[in-house]
Amino acid sequence: MNIFITNDDGIHARGIRQLIAIAREFGNVYVVAPDGPQSGKSHAITLSVPMRAKPLPEECPGLVQYACSGTPVDCVKLGLREMFKDTPMDLLLSGINHGSNAGNSVIYSGTMGAAFEASMQGIPSIGFSLLHHSIKADFTECKPLVQAITAKIIEAGLPEDVCLNVNFPAKVKIEGVKVCRSARSHWSEEYKEYLDPHGKPFYWLTGNIINEEPGSTDTDLYWLDRHYASIVPVRADQNALASLPELEGIFRD
Amino acid sequence: MNIFITNDDGIHARGIRQLIAIAREFGNVYVVAPDGPQSGKSHAITLSVPMRAKPLPEECPGLVQYACSGTPVDCVKLGLREMFKDTPMDLLLSGINHGSNAGNSVIYSGTMGAAFEASMQGIPSIGFSLLHHSIKADFTECKPLVQAITAKIIEAGLPEDVCLNVNFPAKVKIEGVKVCRSARSHWSEEYKEYLDPHGKPFYWLTGNIINEEPGSTDTDLYWLDRHYASIVPVRADQNALASLPELEGIFRD
Repeated sequence: MNIFITNDDGIHARGIRQLIAIAREFGNVYVVAPDGPQSGKSHAITLSVPMRAKPLPEECPGLVQYACSGTPVDCVKLGLREMFKDTPMDLLLSGINHGSNAGNSVIYSGTMGAAFEASMQGIPSIGFSLLHHSIKADFTECKPLVQAITAKIIEAGLPEDVCLNVNFPAKVKIEGVKVCRSARSHWSEEYKEYLDPHGKPFYWLTGNIINEEPGSTDTDLYWLDRHYASIVPVRADQNALASLPELEGIFRD
Repeated sequence: MNIFITNDDGIHARGIRQLIAIAREFGNVYVVAPDGPQSGKSHAITLSVPMRAKPLPEECPGLVQYACSGTPVDCVKLGLREMFKDTPMDLLLSGINHGSNAGNSVIYSGTMGAAFEASMQGIPSIGFSLLHHSIKADFTECKPLVQAITAKIIEAGLPEDVCLNVNFPAKVKIEGVKVCRSARSHWSEEYKEYLDPHGKPFYWLTGNIINEEPGSTDTDLYWLDRHYASIVPVRADQNALASLPELEGIFRD
Protein backbone atom coordinates (compact mmCIF):
# COMPACT_ATOMS: atom_id res chain seq x y z
CA MET A 1 0.00 0.00 0.00
CA ASN A 2 1.53 3.33 -1.10
CA ILE A 3 0.04 6.38 0.61
CA PHE A 4 0.72 9.99 -0.40
CA ILE A 5 0.34 12.51 2.39
CA THR A 6 0.03 16.28 2.23
CA ASN A 7 -1.74 19.13 4.02
CA ASP A 8 -2.11 22.92 3.95
CA ASP A 9 -0.80 23.90 7.38
CA GLY A 10 2.76 22.97 6.50
CA ILE A 11 4.90 19.87 6.90
CA HIS A 12 5.76 20.54 10.54
CA ALA A 13 2.16 21.01 11.74
CA ARG A 14 0.91 18.68 14.43
CA GLY A 15 -2.01 17.47 12.29
CA ILE A 16 0.13 16.09 9.44
CA ARG A 17 2.57 14.47 11.88
CA GLN A 18 -0.40 12.61 13.40
CA LEU A 19 -1.70 11.65 9.96
CA ILE A 20 1.71 10.33 8.91
CA ALA A 21 1.91 8.19 12.05
CA ILE A 22 -1.54 6.73 11.34
CA ALA A 23 -0.83 6.15 7.64
CA ARG A 24 2.36 4.23 8.45
CA GLU A 25 0.19 1.53 10.04
CA PHE A 26 -1.31 0.93 6.57
CA GLY A 27 1.73 0.98 4.29
CA ASN A 28 4.57 3.01 2.82
CA VAL A 29 4.20 6.74 3.25
CA TYR A 30 5.34 9.42 0.80
CA VAL A 31 5.07 13.05 1.83
CA VAL A 32 5.23 16.25 -0.16
CA ALA A 33 3.78 19.04 1.96
CA PRO A 34 4.07 22.83 2.03
CA ASP A 35 7.10 24.36 3.75
CA GLY A 36 4.80 26.90 5.44
CA PRO A 37 1.12 27.79 5.88
CA GLN A 38 -0.99 27.41 2.73
CA SER A 39 -4.46 27.67 4.23
CA GLY A 40 -7.20 29.01 1.97
CA LYS A 41 -5.28 28.11 -1.19
CA SER A 42 -8.14 26.10 -2.70
CA HIS A 43 -7.09 24.52 -6.00
CA ALA A 44 -4.42 27.16 -6.72
CA ILE A 45 -1.25 26.24 -8.60
CA THR A 46 2.00 28.16 -8.84
CA LEU A 47 2.59 29.55 -12.34
CA SER A 48 4.46 32.83 -12.10
CA VAL A 49 7.30 31.98 -9.70
CA PRO A 50 9.60 28.96 -9.52
CA MET A 51 8.98 26.22 -6.99
CA ARG A 52 11.38 24.62 -4.54
CA ALA A 53 11.24 21.21 -2.89
CA LYS A 54 13.69 20.12 -0.20
CA PRO A 55 14.04 16.57 1.14
CA LEU A 56 13.76 16.21 4.90
CA PRO A 57 16.16 13.95 6.81
CA GLU A 58 14.83 10.36 6.85
CA GLU A 59 13.59 10.11 10.42
CA CYS A 60 12.17 6.59 10.09
CA PRO A 61 12.97 3.87 7.52
CA GLY A 62 10.58 4.00 4.56
CA LEU A 63 9.33 7.49 5.24
CA VAL A 64 10.29 9.89 2.44
CA GLN A 65 9.41 13.56 2.90
CA TYR A 66 9.78 16.77 0.91
CA ALA A 67 8.95 20.31 2.00
CA CYS A 68 7.68 22.29 -1.00
CA SER A 69 7.33 26.04 -1.49
CA GLY A 70 4.08 25.65 -3.45
CA THR A 71 0.41 25.16 -2.65
CA PRO A 72 -1.13 21.84 -1.58
CA VAL A 73 -2.15 21.15 -5.22
CA ASP A 74 1.44 21.90 -6.33
CA CYS A 75 2.66 19.38 -3.73
CA VAL A 76 0.42 16.66 -5.21
CA LYS A 77 1.36 17.44 -8.80
CA LEU A 78 5.09 17.72 -8.11
CA GLY A 79 5.17 14.58 -5.96
CA LEU A 80 3.28 12.47 -8.50
CA ARG A 81 5.24 13.76 -11.52
CA GLU A 82 8.72 14.08 -10.05
CA MET A 83 9.72 12.69 -6.65
CA PHE A 84 7.48 9.62 -6.69
CA LYS A 85 6.85 9.22 -10.40
CA ASP A 86 7.79 5.51 -10.30
CA THR A 87 5.59 4.72 -7.29
CA PRO A 88 1.92 4.05 -8.08
CA MET A 89 -0.08 5.64 -5.26
CA ASP A 90 -3.06 3.74 -3.83
CA LEU A 91 -4.41 6.52 -1.64
CA LEU A 92 -3.91 10.18 -0.80
CA LEU A 93 -4.64 11.53 2.67
CA SER A 94 -4.66 15.28 3.28
CA GLY A 95 -4.59 16.94 6.69
CA ILE A 96 -5.31 16.57 9.47
CA ASN A 97 -6.26 20.21 9.04
CA HIS A 98 -6.17 22.56 11.99
CA GLY A 99 -9.64 24.08 11.51
CA SER A 100 -12.97 23.27 9.88
CA ASN A 101 -13.52 22.53 6.21
CA ALA A 102 -17.25 21.95 6.60
CA GLY A 103 -20.05 23.87 4.86
CA ASN A 104 -18.87 26.02 1.98
CA SER A 105 -15.31 26.12 3.37
CA VAL A 106 -14.57 23.15 1.13
CA ILE A 107 -14.15 25.42 -1.91
CA TYR A 108 -11.54 27.63 -0.17
CA SER A 109 -9.68 24.75 1.44
CA GLY A 110 -6.12 23.85 0.50
CA THR A 111 -6.55 20.54 2.33
CA MET A 112 -9.43 19.68 0.03
CA GLY A 113 -7.69 21.18 -3.04
CA ALA A 114 -5.05 18.45 -2.64
CA ALA A 115 -7.72 15.76 -2.22
CA PHE A 116 -9.56 16.96 -5.35
CA GLU A 117 -6.33 16.97 -7.35
CA ALA A 118 -5.56 13.36 -6.41
CA SER A 119 -9.10 12.38 -7.28
CA MET A 120 -8.76 14.09 -10.69
CA GLN A 121 -5.65 11.95 -11.23
CA GLY A 122 -7.54 8.75 -10.38
CA ILE A 123 -6.20 8.31 -6.84
CA PRO A 124 -8.77 7.73 -4.07
CA SER A 125 -8.41 10.52 -1.53
CA ILE A 126 -9.66 11.76 1.81
CA GLY A 127 -9.25 15.17 3.44
CA PHE A 128 -9.39 15.19 7.25
CA SER A 129 -10.04 18.32 9.34
CA LEU A 130 -10.46 18.98 13.05
CA LEU A 131 -12.62 21.94 14.14
CA HIS A 132 -9.77 23.53 16.08
CA HIS A 133 -7.58 26.22 14.55
CA SER A 134 -4.84 26.23 17.17
CA ILE A 135 -1.36 25.01 16.25
CA LYS A 136 -1.59 23.13 19.55
CA ALA A 137 -4.85 21.36 18.58
CA ASP A 138 -5.28 17.96 20.22
CA PHE A 139 -5.93 15.13 17.74
CA THR A 140 -6.27 12.34 20.34
CA GLU A 141 -10.06 12.09 20.13
CA CYS A 142 -10.24 11.86 16.32
CA LYS A 143 -7.28 9.49 15.84
CA PRO A 144 -9.27 6.20 16.08
CA LEU A 145 -11.79 7.57 13.57
CA VAL A 146 -9.08 8.57 11.09
CA GLN A 147 -7.81 4.99 11.36
CA ALA A 148 -11.28 3.46 10.97
CA ILE A 149 -12.33 5.66 8.03
CA THR A 150 -9.03 5.04 6.24
CA ALA A 151 -9.38 1.28 6.76
CA LYS A 152 -12.95 1.32 5.40
CA ILE A 153 -11.95 3.17 2.24
CA ILE A 154 -8.91 0.95 1.66
CA GLU A 155 -11.31 -2.02 1.85
CA ALA A 156 -14.32 -0.63 -0.05
CA GLY A 157 -12.81 1.95 -2.40
CA LEU A 158 -14.58 5.13 -3.47
CA PRO A 159 -17.03 5.90 -6.30
CA GLU A 160 -15.27 7.18 -9.44
CA ASP A 161 -14.32 10.89 -9.31
CA VAL A 162 -15.49 11.20 -5.70
CA CYS A 163 -13.32 12.02 -2.70
CA LEU A 164 -14.22 12.53 0.95
CA ASN A 165 -14.31 15.66 3.09
CA VAL A 166 -14.16 14.44 6.70
CA ASN A 167 -14.54 16.86 9.62
CA PHE A 168 -14.25 16.13 13.35
CA PRO A 169 -15.72 18.16 16.21
CA ALA A 170 -13.08 19.32 18.71
CA LYS A 171 -12.82 19.23 22.49
CA VAL A 172 -15.82 16.89 22.88
CA LYS A 173 -16.48 13.18 23.00
CA ILE A 174 -17.27 12.24 19.36
CA GLU A 175 -20.65 10.50 19.24
CA GLY A 176 -20.14 8.68 15.91
CA VAL A 177 -19.87 9.38 12.17
CA LYS A 178 -22.51 10.61 9.74
CA VAL A 179 -22.38 10.43 5.95
CA CYS A 180 -24.05 13.66 4.84
CA ARG A 181 -23.83 16.63 2.47
CA SER A 182 -22.24 20.09 2.91
CA ALA A 183 -24.64 22.57 4.43
CA ARG A 184 -25.64 25.53 2.31
CA SER A 185 -23.72 28.26 4.08
CA HIS A 186 -21.87 31.54 3.72
CA TRP A 187 -19.31 33.59 5.61
CA SER A 188 -20.36 36.68 7.55
CA GLU A 189 -17.19 38.36 6.45
CA GLU A 190 -15.61 41.58 7.48
CA TYR A 191 -12.35 43.21 6.64
CA LYS A 192 -10.52 44.67 9.59
CA GLU A 193 -8.85 47.84 8.34
CA TYR A 194 -5.47 48.86 9.74
CA LEU A 195 -3.04 51.69 9.10
CA ASP A 196 0.61 50.80 8.60
CA PRO A 197 3.34 52.93 10.28
CA HIS A 198 3.38 55.12 7.15
CA GLY A 199 -0.36 55.85 7.34
CA LYS A 200 -1.34 53.57 4.46
CA PRO A 201 -4.29 51.21 4.91
CA PHE A 202 -4.20 47.44 4.78
CA TYR A 203 -6.92 44.83 5.25
CA TRP A 204 -7.26 41.49 6.97
CA LEU A 205 -10.16 39.09 6.36
CA THR A 206 -12.17 37.83 9.31
CA GLY A 207 -15.53 36.07 9.58
CA ASN A 208 -17.73 33.24 10.75
CA ILE A 209 -19.57 30.58 8.82
CA ILE A 210 -23.36 30.84 8.84
CA ASN A 211 -25.47 27.73 8.28
CA GLU A 212 -28.28 28.85 5.94
CA GLU A 213 -30.33 25.74 6.67
CA PRO A 214 -29.92 25.05 10.40
CA GLY A 215 -33.06 22.90 10.44
CA SER A 216 -31.83 20.43 7.78
CA THR A 217 -30.80 17.20 9.48
CA ASP A 218 -28.67 15.84 6.62
CA THR A 219 -25.77 18.31 6.62
CA ASP A 220 -22.22 18.41 7.98
CA LEU A 221 -22.77 21.59 10.02
CA TYR A 222 -25.84 20.03 11.65
CA TRP A 223 -24.03 16.89 12.77
CA LEU A 224 -20.78 18.59 13.77
CA ASP A 225 -22.85 20.81 16.09
CA ARG A 226 -24.18 17.60 17.64
CA HIS A 227 -20.68 16.17 18.19
CA TYR A 228 -20.65 13.75 15.25
CA ALA A 229 -17.86 13.47 12.67
CA SER A 230 -19.13 14.32 9.16
CA ILE A 231 -18.19 12.42 6.00
CA VAL A 232 -19.17 14.34 2.84
CA PRO A 233 -18.62 12.87 -0.64
CA VAL A 234 -17.44 15.66 -2.97
CA ARG A 235 -16.26 15.94 -6.56
CA ALA A 236 -14.01 18.26 -8.53
CA ASP A 237 -16.36 18.43 -11.51
CA GLN A 238 -18.21 21.76 -11.52
CA ASN A 239 -20.41 21.25 -14.57
CA ALA A 240 -24.00 22.38 -13.88
CA LEU A 241 -25.45 19.74 -16.20
CA ALA A 242 -29.04 20.23 -15.01
CA SER A 243 -28.95 23.82 -16.30
CA LEU A 244 -27.94 22.96 -19.86
CA PRO A 245 -31.52 22.91 -21.28
CA GLU A 246 -32.36 26.32 -19.76
CA LEU A 247 -29.16 27.87 -21.08
CA GLU A 248 -29.69 26.30 -24.49
CA GLY A 249 -33.13 27.95 -24.50
CA ILE A 250 -31.68 31.37 -23.70
CA PHE A 251 -29.09 31.21 -26.47
CA ARG A 252 -31.29 29.53 -29.07
CA ASP A 253 -33.38 32.66 -29.65
CA MET B 1 -27.21 48.52 -13.88
CA ASN B 2 -24.20 48.11 -11.56
CA ILE B 3 -21.49 45.84 -12.95
CA PHE B 4 -18.51 44.56 -10.95
CA ILE B 5 -15.44 43.74 -13.01
CA THR B 6 -12.36 41.73 -12.10
CA ASN B 7 -9.87 39.33 -13.69
CA ASP B 8 -6.76 37.32 -12.90
CA ASP B 9 -4.22 38.79 -15.29
CA GLY B 10 -4.09 42.07 -13.40
CA ILE B 11 -5.86 45.42 -13.71
CA HIS B 12 -3.65 46.70 -16.54
CA ALA B 13 -4.08 43.66 -18.81
CA ARG B 14 -5.55 44.27 -22.23
CA GLY B 15 -8.40 41.79 -21.64
CA ILE B 16 -9.86 43.58 -18.62
CA ARG B 17 -9.52 46.99 -20.31
CA GLN B 18 -11.62 45.63 -23.20
CA LEU B 19 -14.15 44.14 -20.79
CA ILE B 20 -14.47 47.43 -18.91
CA ALA B 21 -15.10 49.29 -22.16
CA ILE B 22 -17.83 46.81 -23.12
CA ALA B 23 -19.44 46.82 -19.65
CA ARG B 24 -19.67 50.63 -19.66
CA GLU B 25 -22.17 50.34 -22.52
CA PHE B 26 -24.50 48.52 -20.08
CA GLY B 27 -24.19 50.58 -16.89
CA ASN B 28 -21.98 51.77 -14.07
CA VAL B 29 -18.75 49.88 -13.73
CA TYR B 30 -16.92 49.10 -10.48
CA VAL B 31 -13.52 47.47 -10.67
CA VAL B 32 -11.41 45.69 -8.07
CA ALA B 33 -8.76 43.68 -9.87
CA PRO B 34 -5.36 42.24 -8.94
CA ASP B 35 -2.35 44.58 -9.03
CA GLY B 36 -0.36 41.83 -10.80
CA PRO B 37 -0.74 38.37 -12.34
CA GLN B 38 -2.94 35.98 -10.33
CA SER B 39 -3.39 33.22 -12.90
CA GLY B 40 -4.04 29.74 -11.55
CA LYS B 41 -5.26 31.05 -8.20
CA SER B 42 -8.55 29.14 -8.35
CA HIS B 43 -10.75 29.99 -5.36
CA ALA B 44 -7.81 30.94 -3.13
CA ILE B 45 -8.17 33.65 -0.50
CA THR B 46 -5.46 35.55 1.35
CA LEU B 47 -5.33 34.63 5.03
CA SER B 48 -1.74 34.81 6.26
CA VAL B 49 -0.60 38.19 4.94
CA PRO B 50 -2.35 41.59 4.91
CA MET B 51 -4.00 42.86 1.77
CA ARG B 52 -3.63 46.22 0.05
CA ALA B 53 -6.04 48.01 -2.28
CA LYS B 54 -5.14 51.24 -4.06
CA PRO B 55 -7.58 53.46 -5.96
CA LEU B 56 -6.62 54.24 -9.54
CA PRO B 57 -7.03 57.77 -10.92
CA GLU B 58 -10.56 58.26 -12.28
CA GLU B 59 -9.95 58.12 -16.02
CA CYS B 60 -13.61 58.40 -17.03
CA PRO B 61 -16.59 59.71 -15.05
CA GLY B 62 -18.41 56.91 -13.22
CA LEU B 63 -15.57 54.42 -13.48
CA VAL B 64 -14.17 53.52 -10.04
CA GLN B 65 -11.15 51.24 -9.93
CA TYR B 66 -8.99 49.63 -7.28
CA ALA B 67 -5.82 47.58 -7.73
CA CYS B 68 -5.67 44.91 -5.01
CA SER B 69 -2.73 42.80 -3.85
CA GLY B 70 -4.94 39.71 -3.34
CA THR B 71 -6.36 36.95 -5.49
CA PRO B 72 -9.37 37.36 -7.80
CA VAL B 73 -11.65 35.95 -5.05
CA ASP B 74 -10.13 38.45 -2.57
CA CYS B 75 -10.94 41.22 -5.06
CA VAL B 76 -14.60 40.18 -5.18
CA LYS B 77 -14.91 39.81 -1.40
CA LEU B 78 -13.11 43.06 -0.62
CA GLY B 79 -15.00 45.04 -3.25
CA LEU B 80 -18.40 43.78 -2.14
CA ARG B 81 -17.71 44.21 1.60
CA GLU B 82 -15.68 47.41 1.62
CA MET B 83 -15.28 49.66 -1.41
CA PHE B 84 -18.73 49.11 -2.92
CA LYS B 85 -20.66 47.89 0.10
CA ASP B 86 -23.48 50.38 -0.49
CA THR B 87 -23.84 49.54 -4.18
CA PRO B 88 -25.99 46.48 -4.96
CA MET B 89 -24.31 44.70 -7.85
CA ASP B 90 -26.46 43.32 -10.67
CA LEU B 91 -23.74 41.41 -12.49
CA LEU B 92 -20.10 40.39 -12.22
CA LEU B 93 -17.94 39.96 -15.31
CA SER B 94 -14.49 38.40 -14.99
CA GLY B 95 -11.79 38.51 -17.67
CA ILE B 96 -11.36 38.69 -20.51
CA ASN B 97 -8.72 36.12 -19.61
CA HIS B 98 -5.58 35.84 -21.71
CA GLY B 99 -5.68 32.05 -22.18
CA SER B 100 -8.12 29.16 -22.12
CA ASN B 101 -10.28 28.16 -19.17
CA ALA B 102 -11.97 25.30 -21.02
CA GLY B 103 -11.93 21.63 -20.03
CA ASN B 104 -10.71 21.00 -16.50
CA SER B 105 -8.87 24.35 -16.43
CA VAL B 106 -11.98 25.80 -14.82
CA ILE B 107 -10.98 24.45 -11.40
CA TYR B 108 -7.52 26.10 -11.52
CA SER B 109 -8.77 29.38 -12.95
CA GLY B 110 -8.64 32.63 -11.02
CA THR B 111 -10.96 34.19 -13.60
CA MET B 112 -13.56 31.55 -12.77
CA GLY B 113 -12.78 31.67 -9.02
CA ALA B 114 -14.04 35.26 -9.06
CA ALA B 115 -17.14 34.27 -11.03
CA PHE B 116 -17.90 31.41 -8.60
CA GLU B 117 -17.47 33.73 -5.62
CA ALA B 118 -19.98 36.23 -7.02
CA SER B 119 -22.40 33.41 -7.75
CA MET B 120 -22.05 32.15 -4.15
CA GLN B 121 -22.99 35.67 -3.04
CA GLY B 122 -26.11 35.67 -5.23
CA ILE B 123 -24.72 37.85 -8.04
CA PRO B 124 -25.11 36.54 -11.62
CA SER B 125 -21.67 36.18 -13.12
CA ILE B 126 -19.81 35.33 -16.29
CA GLY B 127 -16.14 34.52 -16.83
CA PHE B 128 -14.78 35.27 -20.31
CA SER B 129 -11.56 33.80 -21.71
CA LEU B 130 -9.78 33.99 -25.05
CA LEU B 131 -7.60 31.06 -26.13
CA HIS B 132 -4.53 33.24 -26.49
CA HIS B 133 -1.99 33.56 -23.68
CA SER B 134 -0.07 36.54 -25.05
CA ILE B 135 -0.24 39.87 -23.24
CA LYS B 136 -0.72 41.28 -26.74
CA ALA B 137 -3.74 39.03 -27.45
CA ASP B 138 -6.23 40.57 -29.88
CA PHE B 139 -9.81 40.73 -28.54
CA THR B 140 -11.39 42.28 -31.65
CA GLU B 141 -13.01 39.09 -32.89
CA CYS B 142 -14.66 38.16 -29.57
CA LYS B 143 -15.83 41.65 -28.61
CA PRO B 144 -19.28 41.48 -30.31
CA LEU B 145 -19.91 38.11 -28.66
CA VAL B 146 -18.99 39.42 -25.19
CA GLN B 147 -21.54 42.18 -25.81
CA ALA B 148 -24.23 39.79 -27.08
CA ILE B 149 -23.76 37.21 -24.29
CA THR B 150 -23.79 39.92 -21.62
CA ALA B 151 -26.97 41.44 -23.10
CA LYS B 152 -28.68 38.01 -23.17
CA ILE B 153 -27.88 37.31 -19.50
CA ILE B 154 -28.95 40.80 -18.40
CA GLU B 155 -32.25 40.11 -20.14
CA ALA B 156 -32.83 36.44 -19.20
CA GLY B 157 -30.92 36.06 -15.93
CA LEU B 158 -29.19 32.85 -14.86
CA PRO B 159 -30.41 29.74 -13.04
CA GLU B 160 -29.84 29.92 -9.25
CA ASP B 161 -26.26 29.11 -8.17
CA VAL B 162 -25.09 28.81 -11.78
CA CYS B 163 -22.52 31.00 -13.51
CA LEU B 164 -21.06 30.85 -17.01
CA ASN B 165 -17.63 29.85 -18.24
CA VAL B 166 -17.32 31.37 -21.73
CA ASN B 167 -14.31 30.64 -23.94
CA PHE B 168 -13.47 32.08 -27.35
CA PRO B 169 -11.20 30.56 -30.01
CA ALA B 170 -8.36 32.89 -31.03
CA LYS B 171 -6.98 34.04 -34.38
CA VAL B 172 -9.90 32.59 -36.36
CA LYS B 173 -13.29 33.72 -37.58
CA ILE B 174 -15.69 32.62 -34.79
CA GLU B 175 -18.45 30.45 -36.31
CA GLY B 176 -21.02 30.95 -33.53
CA VAL B 177 -21.69 30.00 -29.91
CA LYS B 178 -22.45 26.60 -28.38
CA VAL B 179 -23.94 25.92 -24.96
CA CYS B 180 -22.15 22.76 -23.81
CA ARG B 181 -20.36 21.06 -20.91
CA SER B 182 -16.67 20.98 -19.95
CA ALA B 183 -14.82 18.14 -21.61
CA ARG B 184 -13.40 15.45 -19.37
CA SER B 185 -9.72 16.30 -19.65
CA HIS B 186 -6.38 16.33 -17.87
CA TRP B 187 -3.02 18.06 -18.16
CA SER B 188 -0.01 16.22 -19.58
CA GLU B 189 2.16 17.94 -17.05
CA GLU B 190 5.86 18.10 -16.66
CA TYR B 191 8.12 19.99 -14.36
CA LYS B 192 11.07 21.60 -16.01
CA GLU B 193 13.94 21.32 -13.56
CA TYR B 194 16.53 24.12 -13.34
CA LEU B 195 19.58 24.80 -11.21
CA ASP B 196 19.92 28.23 -9.63
CA PRO B 197 23.33 30.02 -9.67
CA HIS B 198 24.09 28.33 -6.31
CA GLY B 199 23.46 24.82 -7.67
CA LYS B 200 20.10 24.34 -5.98
CA PRO B 201 17.20 22.96 -8.01
CA PHE B 202 13.93 24.70 -8.73
CA TYR B 203 10.91 23.61 -10.74
CA TRP B 204 8.51 25.22 -13.20
CA LEU B 205 5.22 23.65 -14.25
CA THR B 206 4.48 23.18 -17.94
CA GLY B 207 1.90 21.14 -19.81
CA ASN B 208 -0.90 20.78 -22.31
CA ILE B 209 -4.53 19.94 -21.86
CA ILE B 210 -5.64 16.55 -23.20
CA ASN B 211 -9.28 16.00 -24.18
CA GLU B 212 -10.14 12.53 -22.84
CA GLU B 213 -13.29 12.33 -24.96
CA PRO B 214 -12.38 13.87 -28.33
CA GLY B 215 -15.34 12.13 -30.00
CA SER B 216 -17.98 13.69 -27.74
CA THR B 217 -19.79 16.42 -29.64
CA ASP B 218 -21.26 18.20 -26.59
CA THR B 219 -18.10 19.60 -24.97
CA ASP B 220 -16.26 22.92 -24.89
CA LEU B 221 -12.97 21.49 -26.19
CA TYR B 222 -14.81 19.93 -29.14
CA TRP B 223 -16.48 23.18 -30.22
CA LEU B 224 -13.51 25.44 -29.55
CA ASP B 225 -11.47 23.20 -31.87
CA ARG B 226 -14.15 23.84 -34.51
CA HIS B 227 -13.96 27.65 -34.06
CA TYR B 228 -17.10 28.07 -31.95
CA ALA B 229 -17.28 30.00 -28.68
CA SER B 230 -18.28 27.71 -25.78
CA ILE B 231 -20.73 28.65 -23.01
CA VAL B 232 -20.58 26.20 -20.09
CA PRO B 233 -22.91 26.52 -17.08
CA VAL B 234 -20.94 25.73 -13.90
CA ARG B 235 -21.58 25.82 -10.18
CA ALA B 236 -19.51 26.25 -7.04
CA ASP B 237 -21.29 23.45 -5.16
CA GLN B 238 -19.05 20.36 -5.06
CA ASN B 239 -21.39 17.98 -3.22
CA ALA B 240 -21.43 14.54 -4.89
CA LEU B 241 -25.05 13.94 -3.93
CA ALA B 242 -25.45 10.90 -6.21
CA SER B 243 -22.79 9.07 -4.17
CA LEU B 244 -24.47 9.49 -0.78
CA PRO B 245 -26.29 6.10 -0.82
CA GLU B 246 -23.09 4.20 -1.72
CA LEU B 247 -21.11 5.96 0.99
CA GLU B 248 -23.88 5.39 3.52
CA GLY B 249 -23.68 1.70 2.67
CA ILE B 250 -19.93 1.60 3.25
CA PHE B 251 -20.16 3.26 6.65
CA ARG B 252 -23.34 1.51 7.82
CA ASP B 253 -21.57 -1.81 8.31
